[in-house]
Amino acid sequence: MKSFVEYNSNSDFSIHNIPFGVAVFNKEFIACCTRIGDQVVDLALLYDLSYFDDIAGLDENVFEAYTLNEFIELGKPVTNAVRLKIQELLLDGSILSKDEKTIEDAFYDLDQVKMIMPVHIPNYTDFYSSIEHATNVGKMFRDPANALLPNWKHLPVGYHGRASSIVVSGTDINRPKGQMKPADADKPVFGPCKQLDFELEMAFIINQNTEMGENVSTKDAENAIFGMVVFNDWSARDIQSWEYVPLGPFLAKNFGSSVSPWVVTLEALEPFRTASPTQDPEVLDYLKFEGDKNYDINLEVYIQPENGEENLISESNYKYMYWNMTQQLAHHTVNGCNLEVGDLYASGTISGNDPKSYGSMLELTWRGQNPIILSNGQERKFIEDNDTVTMKAWAEKDGVRVGFGEVSGKIIPTK
Amino acid sequence: MKSFVEYNSNSDFSIHNIPFGVAVFNKEFIACCTRIGDQVVDLALLYDLSYFDDIAGLDENVFEAYTLNEFIELGKPVTNAVRLKIQELLLDGSILSKDEKTIEDAFYDLDQVKMIMPVHIPNYTDFYSSIEHATNVGKMFRDPANALLPNWKHLPVGYHGRASSIVVSGTDINRPKGQMKPADADKPVFGPCKQLDFELEMAFIINQNTEMGENVSTKDAENAIFGMVVFNDWSARDIQSWEYVPLGPFLAKNFGSSVSPWVVTLEALEPFRTASPTQDPEVLDYLKFEGDKNYDINLEVYIQPENGEENLISESNYKYMYWNMTQQLAHHTVNGCNLEVGDLYASGTISGNDPKSYGSMLELTWRGQNPIILSNGQERKFIEDNDTVTMKAWAEKDGVRVGFGEVSGKIIPTK
Repeated sequence: MKSFVEYNSNSDFSIHNIPFGVAVFNKEFIACCTRIGDQVVDLALLYDLSYFDDIAGLDENVFEAYTLNEFIELGKPVTNAVRLKIQELLLDGSILSKDEKTIEDAFYDLDQVKMIMPVHIPNYTDFYSSIEHATNVGKMFRDPANALLPNWKHLPVGYHGRASSIVVSGTDINRPKGQMKPADADKPVFGPCKQLDFELEMAFIINQNTEMGENVSTKDAENAIFGMVVFNDWSARDIQSWEYVPLGPFLAKNFGSSVSPWVVTLEALEPFRTASPTQDPEVLDYLKFEGDKNYDINLEVYIQPENGEENLISESNYKYMYWNMTQQLAHHTVNGCNLEVGDLYASGTISGNDPKSYGSMLELTWRGQNPIILSNGQERKFIEDNDTVTMKAWAEKDGVRVGFGEVSGKIIPTK
Repeated sequence: MKSFVEYNSNSDFSIHNIPFGVAVFNKEFIACCTRIGDQVVDLALLYDLSYFDDIAGLDENVFEAYTLNEFIELGKPVTNAVRLKIQELLLDGSILSKDEKTIEDAFYDLDQVKMIMPVHIPNYTDFYSSIEHATNVGKMFRDPANALLPNWKHLPVGYHGRASSIVVSGTDINRPKGQMKPADADKPVFGPCKQLDFELEMAFIINQNTEMGENVSTKDAENAIFGMVVFNDWSARDIQSWEYVPLGPFLAKNFGSSVSPWVVTLEALEPFRTASPTQDPEVLDYLKFEGDKNYDINLEVYIQPENGEENLISESNYKYMYWNMTQQLAHHTVNGCNLEVGDLYASGTISGNDPKSYGSMLELTWRGQNPIILSNGQERKFIEDNDTVTMKAWAEKDGVRVGFGEVSGKIIPTK
């Protein structure tokens, strides 16, 4: 497939991708959009110009909106048809390729748009589905000999997070203040977090409302997932270790989480399916699944200090996940918990076996014991003020590349 | 104060109350409303008939809505003025009392309305702020000698809950299925929950959006709280005890929570302020507060088996809370976590010292060891299918009664 829009061969936004997002165009108006190469395309205008007229079920201009929720809610038959139509329109020789007026009006350079939150997120859940991450944390915080808790291999452990503080890539994050209890103190102290961390995650977004009491099986789960984003679950480790018993992380997490602006559909990720790690012991029936439910997605994390250059500090892969998305969703709904359009379900920190693939500073520096040395000579045990953390994600196979771009955020000093 | 609407002296909905809710009137239309005695009053109609014309800041008919959010967001200067205006209009001899046509059109008997969710809840947090409850749970699940964890007296422990499954009183709740691990089993089993419980709680509702990075002090907190509801945080104890380490309760809670349809304002509760239990050790500065921040609110829990009568099984009081609302909100925002209009913050189970005041079956029957005997002779260790659990809440002092009515829910068998 070749597009009439030219782009570099290493672009995440190839003709094979066709992701969805929401942009402010020219500081003037907001609309849903897609991206090819470095061009952002106004889908609301394409709709108005009748380019989507033959798509059944697309009866109003859902792209004229501040979020993707209305579009997503139309479900796979419509959203897939729209994506394929966009792909067709972007091909060399298409009707659109010959419509110079529309190309001039609907296509924008990156610097003419500002990406905003792609979806309104009614509910956010964070899983804990990387066995390497859970093991590393268990070794550090609990018992090296019994790092995994007894339930971990029987269910995808997860917890509810805070939806209000999920922000789009590029939004600054305030270093949180809070209670911490230094190991040698007899009571807690208050102040800015001293162990600020990122968590390298991916997340999926739900396309349907279900009723309380309904279950979504592993077989039906993919049909309920519109697509994925890259996700940074910022974490305050010193606040977390003091507050988290017995009800889980709270203020250590809810000061901010960052998402990539582009949602890549499961359909675009189809070529990159791969097998899951073997699950032993065998899981209960409702968690069983058939076929390849993982995806081979390369992940990178960079730290850029103020006035310094980007330092690659982690290289991981989504395929390491022990629990896959269909299992996470089947588990989440097995008790009848209802889903809402736009719900975001994050993977939990994605770490691999190799220490270079660990998905948090906690693991990379082993709780600060082995600091990372940046290219400017500075040490990092955790994230410092004015550091920018950037995560990149892309899949590549047989010359086809589909990526997410990045999720980036800068830590600013406590007010 | 005497209203022209007659009601029993033990009504929760006296002229001193003036709560807010949302109703379907005559199966025909939805509007925000208040209640006096057994009359539900359509506020959208009163607005249209110019009864609120002199209230500054009330520039559109926010009562013509499916939720109270728009009204609440106007803030205390407006919402308090509206409440006082309604109170004035309901007095004997008021202009409204002489407007027979409006009384006929705007006042409905209880059986002509169906109450629906009063607010859209963007975010839900559950605290754990009763020392008696936390101590009881710690004794049962952990160590009787060290029942409270080290952080408990230093911060109001809390966690994020699921907003999507919060439903209004009267909505049936499905018994959840899930994983449980019987004490004598070597691996988990799957099936309907066998230890279904209620949690007697109250919750407060936020009236403002804040920015990430902002803090709400204990001094400012009450200004950010519109009012309170009675809250039943249904819990599956057997699912909970297996899943909850290390990230907290998840499927044990998110299958459903129930709220009362009436939101009682903090201003209506003003006469019932009372002192808090002494906090020892002293708390950190950001958790200090001045004045009486607790409220003396009587609480009752009833179980009604199918075809049986209501059994009073617990009598508690909101004043037992160790951590008050201003502390909960100051803690929640001290890290810069942003608030949204309609956010619901629940107290956690409210237990007193007396075993008859325990706020859950877990505590009342001490994990099933001491079953409750109902008036029909049946035993209850936990909640059975087709049992209805009802919680009532009211404050009363010097002949003034202000109450919440009830939150009620029936457990229906797993599908």
